[in-house]
Amino acid sequence: MSKYSIGLDFGTLSGRAVLVNLETGQEAATSVLEYPHAVMDSSLPCGKKLDVDWALQHPQDYLDVIKSTIPDVLKQANVSADDVVGVGIDFTACTVLPTYSDGTPLCFIDKYKSEPHSYVKLWKHHAAQKYADRLNEIASERGEEFLKLYGGKISSEWLVPKVWQIAEEAPEIYDEMDRFIEAADWIVWQLTGNETRNSCTAGYKALWHKQKGFPSNEFFKALHPKLENLVEEKLSRNILPLGSKAGEINEYAASLTGLKAGTPVAVGNVDAHVAVPAVGITDEGKMLMIMGTSTCHMLLGRDEKIVPGMCGVVEDGIMPGYMGYEAGQSCVGDHFDWFVKNCVPESYMREAESLNINIHKLLREKAKKFAPGESGLVALDWWNGNRSVLVDADLSGIIAGMTLLTKPEEIYRALIEATAYGTRIIIETFNKHGLKIDELFACGGIAQKDELMMQIYADVTNRTIKISASKQTPALGSAMFGAVVGGYFRDLKSAAKVMAKLGSRVYTPIAENVKIYNRLYREYEILHDYFGRGENNLLKRLKEIRKDARK
Amino acid sequence: MSKYSIGLDFGTLSGRAVLVNLETGQEAATSVLEYPHAVMDSSLPCGKKLDVDWALQHPQDYLDVIKSTIPDVLKQANVSADDVVGVGIDFTACTVLPTYSDGTPLCFIDKYKSEPHSYVKLWKHHAAQKYADRLNEIASERGEEFLKLYGGKISSEWLVPKVWQIAEEAPEIYDEMDRFIEAADWIVWQLTGNETRNSCTAGYKALWHKQKGFPSNEFFKALHPKLENLVEEKLSRNILPLGSKAGEINEYAASLTGLKAGTPVAVGNVDAHVAVPAVGITDEGKMLMIMGTSTCHMLLGRDEKIVPGMCGVVEDGIMPGYMGYEAGQSCVGDHFDWFVKNCVPESYMREAESLNINIHKLLREKAKKFAPGESGLVALDWWNGNRSVLVDADLSGIIAGMTLLTKPEEIYRALIEATAYGTRIIIETFNKHGLKIDELFACGGIAQKDELMMQIYADVTNRTIKISASKQTPALGSAMFGAVVGGYFRDLKSAAKVMAKLGSRVYTPIAENVKIYNRLYREYEILHDYFGRGENNLLKRLKEIRKDARK
Repeated sequence: MSKYSIGLDFGTLSGRAVLVNLETGQEAATSVLEYPHAVMDSSLPCGKKLDVDWALQHPQDYLDVIKSTIPDVLKQANVSADDVVGVGIDFTACTVLPTYSDGTPLCFIDKYKSEPHSYVKLWKHHAAQKYADRLNEIASERGEEFLKLYGGKISSEWLVPKVWQIAEEAPEIYDEMDRFIEAADWIVWQLTGNETRNSCTAGYKALWHKQKGFPSNEFFKALHPKLENLVEEKLSRNILPLGSKAGEINEYAASLTGLKAGTPVAVGNVDAHVAVPAVGITDEGKMLMIMGTSTCHMLLGRDEKIVPGMCGVVEDGIMPGYMGYEAGQSCVGDHFDWFVKNCVPESYMREAESLNINIHKLLREKAKKFAPGESGLVALDWWNGNRSVLVDADLSGIIAGMTLLTKPEEIYRALIEATAYGTRIIIETFNKHGLKIDELFACGGIAQKDELMMQIYADVTNRTIKISASKQTPALGSAMFGAVVGGYFRDLKSAAKVMAKLGSRVYTPIAENVKIYNRLYREYEILHDYFGRGENNLLKRLKEIRKDARK
Repeated sequence: MSKYSIGLDFGTLSGRAVLVNLETGQEAATSVLEYPHAVMDSSLPCGKKLDVDWALQHPQDYLDVIKSTIPDVLKQANVSADDVVGVGIDFTACTVLPTYSDGTPLCFIDKYKSEPHSYVKLWKHHAAQKYADRLNEIASERGEEFLKLYGGKISSEWLVPKVWQIAEEAPEIYDEMDRFIEAADWIVWQLTGNETRNSCTAGYKALWHKQKGFPSNEFFKALHPKLENLVEEKLSRNILPLGSKAGEINEYAASLTGLKAGTPVAVGNVDAHVAVPAVGITDEGKMLMIMGTSTCHMLLGRDEKIVPGMCGVVEDGIMPGYMGYEAGQSCVGDHFDWFVKNCVPESYMREAESLNINIHKLLREKAKKFAPGESGLVALDWWNGNRSVLVDADLSGIIAGMTLLTKPEEIYRALIEATAYGTRIIIETFNKHGLKIDELFACGGIAQKDELMMQIYADVTNRTIKISASKQTPALGSAMFGAVVGGYFRDLKSAAKVMAKLGSRVYTPIAENVKIYNRLYREYEILHDYFGRGENNLLKRLKEIRKDARK
């Protein structure tokens, strides 16, 4: 009888379970539940309005996912719970909620149902920006060492700005909560009854360092008096490395899911990070790009290097025993969606309709007819600021080289190329700081669907790119962690040999394209440094002018 | 009984006559004829194919215009030919044709009907670019002084590259023709029987200088042996200043047009230049912008100054007794047409349709809602290269400052603003070189229709702008010259007092907009110099890469 592992992946709008056969590596069944409350960004269930930039979730939705999808995959594949050796979980992050010491979310309590701060703050809750700005100032004034591990700046999406917002704006909630915990860890808690904290979210989102721990209480006090003992009072200093067992399915979770009590459960993980072993990366030199609305870049290293402009370096942050490096581009899929919504003429829409294809596909088909460099365009991909390597949200986009003959598909292609140059700058920055990257891997919808884009990435970076074969790469990664804590595989390397899945299509650089893209990349680099490193702060001044004009 | 003057204006696609009452200044009648052959840019009437970049016309069309429109305006207004005191003519330029010594165009001869070089080369015939490039090289190597009067470079649209193309590519036609003459002067010849040459086209298009004459025969010989005696053999050294009488309607022309034989006819003129007195400019300090697909800037001065990047300075080139200065922006109306064709989403088209308004109007309405600077965008208006003040066709356009929230109307507005900054650079360059500009005037469709654009121009340049009231500004200007040579007015100043027409709408700078646009203009200027004056030759390198990619 085959053995199985379950990977649970909690995304922004839905959660899913994947059941994987550990003998064959086959995904035996998948089940998805859209969150009933989706993202709450305009009002609470009670009707109370939310301010702009808020993005909340309801933790009941996560419980609904496990109640619905786990029984469903077992049933679909006709697999007995006896044959499930373990469970792994990944989540968006930093997605974080206030609870009591028994794990009950404050938003489950009637008294707090109309209090926005009692709910889950989703990763893209951006209403804590002013706390992040202030945090960066204070950390920089105090010369806090941790800053350089996060590219010099921490994001409003992370844990400390979010908890600071509660302390400042809803002190009663801050006082009432016993825990402030990542949803990944909370789900593990619900399944096992054990409160654990994982090294990935602690490291990338909560400023924790394996050797040095959290920032000092003096630092937290400098932010807000209430935060002085944040770590002791609301977090935990007990952080488990990825790949550890968090506990076992308890009786209550067994009754909810149909799993056997005692089934091992891995500590929580982050969706982007758990995808790394799922494409077979278990060592240095290979970078994974998780390509969606934005792109996350994941890389393993043996030593801690300071790389300017990365999002973070965390020991055990991706794979136990390795330093995990993360970098990011904040505008990838979003870029093309903006273009299609704002810049594509009617005639193209009609043409796509008459061919019965998606407008993106039409634009790709048209863009494919141009050779690299033929459009004479180069763009800076900063429509949503620049995450890596400039870490500057105040930057904005540029297109250069337009003529009266420039066609929409040429601009579309230039935007693709711009994101590829952005990736190459990240790769070269890692290289310059001692982290070699020989080969690229990609997962996500774009990677699987957009052949033009992936070939351009191969040509621009002059590296082969392998593509994840799974449509549920993070869930597959979680199942690998489940299989390891379940004892079926000795470690992730062994699990990856059977379970990691790559498509047959490998993108190989085309020599003559590489040559032209090298010339274009040099132009991109000059513009990148000129507009991004202070020589001409045009884009920041435009933002200032914009603010003044709106007064 | 009132007296009248007729202005004839020959445009790119049609010719028109305007009959003006000289007592009241009223336009009594207008008549337009679309040229039957329009622009011949793909084939000759016999079916013979033309190469790319060719643009020819048929001189019979011009004769059709005078036969049709002059009788028509007389009839419409019920005016007797006895009361027409004079006729003035303006034409596009350099629009030029080979003829025999009696004025017969070579293309009227059966033998040459299938020879493209026998036809009129329209101003926008661009197939002589390689001769222009070579001419600029040779003139520069030889240190020819005239270059600096044309902003350092002469255009492929002008006379010498066009005649050189004939000498090189159709030597038989070159040998056969007795004259190579501007269509403006040819029409005057047809009306009067006198072959004349006017100071405007000779100066701006044929390298003639009132004091120094044409370039030397040695220079022409250096271009091509056949051209050595070009001036003596095909042109004329007898150049009449604007405002002179060329002759009188002869019997043949009288029979064609219904005008009285003996009616005075002014020497030919250029459409843009003749518009200057038509808006009442008869002295220094006032610049006229003729705004269409591109913009021409016209300015009078008392002395010859060398202004970098202007299109030319010619004595008697606009008004007798003044130095006429011309500058230009090569992408104005074309810019917005490109945008609407390539960058406007379907939903906007639907909205314009449902409101039953033109898409340009919809975009303007939407753009109007933004305050200056509010979009955070700045563009370089070089989609069609830069004429003044950089004189560089190899430049291309740039937009900076885009975000995921940038809307089409914001880009549209940024393109308008970019052309306004381009105008301001021209004004400031004139100012810096001793030509003061206190006030702006504008004519052409854009000036009369686009209030948003004109207000932006007033705000960006911090100058009031007055708008021509005539829908046929050049034809009105020609009628003024007709009235002067007919003796009704002593000079153009007196004619302008009665005949020049401005609309009641004057655009006045709005102080708070001027403040913000001063900040944005500084940003434009930095980009303009960085990308336009050699610090970063990105745009030229992109063009090189483009050429290489197309090989």
